[in-house]
Amino acid sequence: MGGDFAPNNEVLGAIEAAKEKPDTLEIYLVGKESQINDLLRENKALLENIKVLDAPDVVSMDDSPTDTFKSKPNSSMNVAINLVKENKVHGVISAGNTGAFTTNSILKLGRIPGVGRPTIGALFPTDKGTALLCDVGAFVDCRPNHLYEFGVMGSVYMSHIHKIDKPKIGLLSVGEEKSKGNEVTIDAYKLLENSKLNFIGNVEGSDLLKGKSDIVLCDGFVGNILLKFAESFVWLMKSKLTHMANEGFFKKLWVGLISKTMKNVVGGFDYQKYGGVPLLGVNGVCIVGHGKSSPLAIKNMIFRAEEMVSKEINKAIEEYLKSNPLN
Amino acid sequence: MGGDFAPNNEVLGAIEAAKEKPDTLEIYLVGKESQINDLLRENKALLENIKVLDAPDVVSMDDSPTDTFKSKPNSSMNVAINLVKENKVHGVISAGNTGAFTTNSILKLGRIPGVGRPTIGALFPTDKGTALLCDVGAFVDCRPNHLYEFGVMGSVYMSHIHKIDKPKIGLLSVGEEKSKGNEVTIDAYKLLENSKLNFIGNVEGSDLLKGKSDIVLCDGFVGNILLKFAESFVWLMKSKLTHMANEGFFKKLWVGLISKTMKNVVGGFDYQKYGGVPLLGVNGVCIVGHGKSSPLAIKNMIFRAEEMVSKEINKAIEEYLKSNPLN
Repeated sequence: MGGDFAPNNEVLGAIEAAKEKPDTLEIYLVGKESQINDLLRENKALLENIKVLDAPDVVSMDDSPTDTFKSKPNSSMNVAINLVKENKVHGVISAGNTGAFTTNSILKLGRIPGVGRPTIGALFPTDKGTALLCDVGAFVDCRPNHLYEFGVMGSVYMSHIHKIDKPKIGLLSVGEEKSKGNEVTIDAYKLLENSKLNFIGNVEGSDLLKGKSDIVLCDGFVGNILLKFAESFVWLMKSKLTHMANEGFFKKLWVGLISKTMKNVVGGFDYQKYGGVPLLGVNGVCIVGHGKSSPLAIKNMIFRAEEMVSKEINKAIEEYLKSNPLN
Repeated sequence: MGGDFAPNNEVLGAIEAAKEKPDTLEIYLVGKESQINDLLRENKALLENIKVLDAPDVVSMDDSPTDTFKSKPNSSMNVAINLVKENKVHGVISAGNTGAFTTNSILKLGRIPGVGRPTIGALFPTDKGTALLCDVGAFVDCRPNHLYEFGVMGSVYMSHIHKIDKPKIGLLSVGEEKSKGNEVTIDAYKLLENSKLNFIGNVEGSDLLKGKSDIVLCDGFVGNILLKFAESFVWLMKSKLTHMANEGFFKKLWVGLISKTMKNVVGGFDYQKYGGVPLLGVNGVCIVGHGKSSPLAIKNMIFRAEEMVSKEINKAIEEYLKSNPLN
């Protein structure tokens, strides 16, 4: 209920998913019952594999992530996470307040044994394909062992979900040499180097889009700034092109064509196509979506959650950490 | 001598600068004397205000920044910095090894009284004009007081050189609220908030290119990664467009036109047009250039150094820090 276009896009996306996989998916829509039922009726989608569960409260985008856990126990977000906790569903997706969803999921579901800190990974396009940036904002101050854990979780995720054999892991730093970096990354380098992960060493800011590694590790402070910067880069281009378009009719035509090409080129930064990003390390499957998620994005988030469940990502993470403890 | 096109571009840029300002500039070209003299003769530029000083050694791009200070005392870099130390010249510019130039300048010239750590500022284009990102790689681990100093130095630089009245200072973080950030930025927020600087609060990764502030403060780890990422973003666009061009002749034509437009749009990231970036906080005027600096970039670096000298930037920084000590 907390997404920018809720519950409309959420319901439409769920209908598409339910229709596409009638035999394998059962979807609970959690939120204001009458609104949701109206939408289902309007779309002639009173399907057997869609159930509606009433939750009167809504976590807004402005709510403090830590408060809603107690202040809004009957929010759609909390009720939905509870379904996972009570083993009534296998996973939960949300396009609402990311901070609140992350915090509430961690507090309610706990962490996978062996994980010190969960992480939000963001997928981004590279010259060679797709890479995962961990962390992009779950925790700003990280210790070296957290970066190692991000490497483990990212590796499991990219090999199982994106079918990359032995994903290459790079540690984001300011130079290639192992002596380059800040205190945390220099120590994290040593942990990664001595691990069984496919660690290729430090990667620099300029290596990300070149696809030098399949996974890029950094703390949530750096990751969040980078991700928002990348999104705004696309924004700046569009803003400058619009400015040029205002200079005349022919230019307007011209800029329209360029914008279309640009969308092809940088469209990969539109993470809706990946169907949300995983909150890794939480003891339950949680998919984080953009507030502006389209019905298509919602559908893809549902499929992504299903995939994480069927491929037992969390179990694989737990087993890896158990078999490869840090000394 | 250590630049990628040295000494050719350096000599050509110096000739242009010397010709343009015959009465106010006196330029010392430091390096392999015979090579430099040959170039001056070839270009018919045996000018009165260009002098040549022999230095047999060259600091290469691969040399360790900290070693060259001792291992190559007669490098063009060291001899040139010595001229500043001995008050024989007012400033020094280099397109050589940035790390070595920074380290050697700080070690040899010392810091401006009151400055704990010098900083390299990078200028970048915004939707509203030009902004300064401090630090972009001089020091990776910063304390809160260093970020405050970067604010002071950036403010003096942007007001004197870029003529921005009371430049707006933003602290790079992961949210607008003062409680958002990592340990260092949360404490730096308090220092900046209580200072006389025009501090507008935290800025996010998405605010940089929008021009929300004239100066963006961060540690060298984050700044270096951001700067290199931005440069590579432009690279990725070009790479994808080239790929598209290979698909056919009409597309080739089309991509050529787009590339030209793109250059207009993101050309601002080509920092050569600013003529290098200042190493602020060092007790002497030092301008850091790109290894691939063109003659035009070299000329602009010389003019930039002259401007920093004539506007007494370092004196202004010293006086500000003296009048506004941190409690």
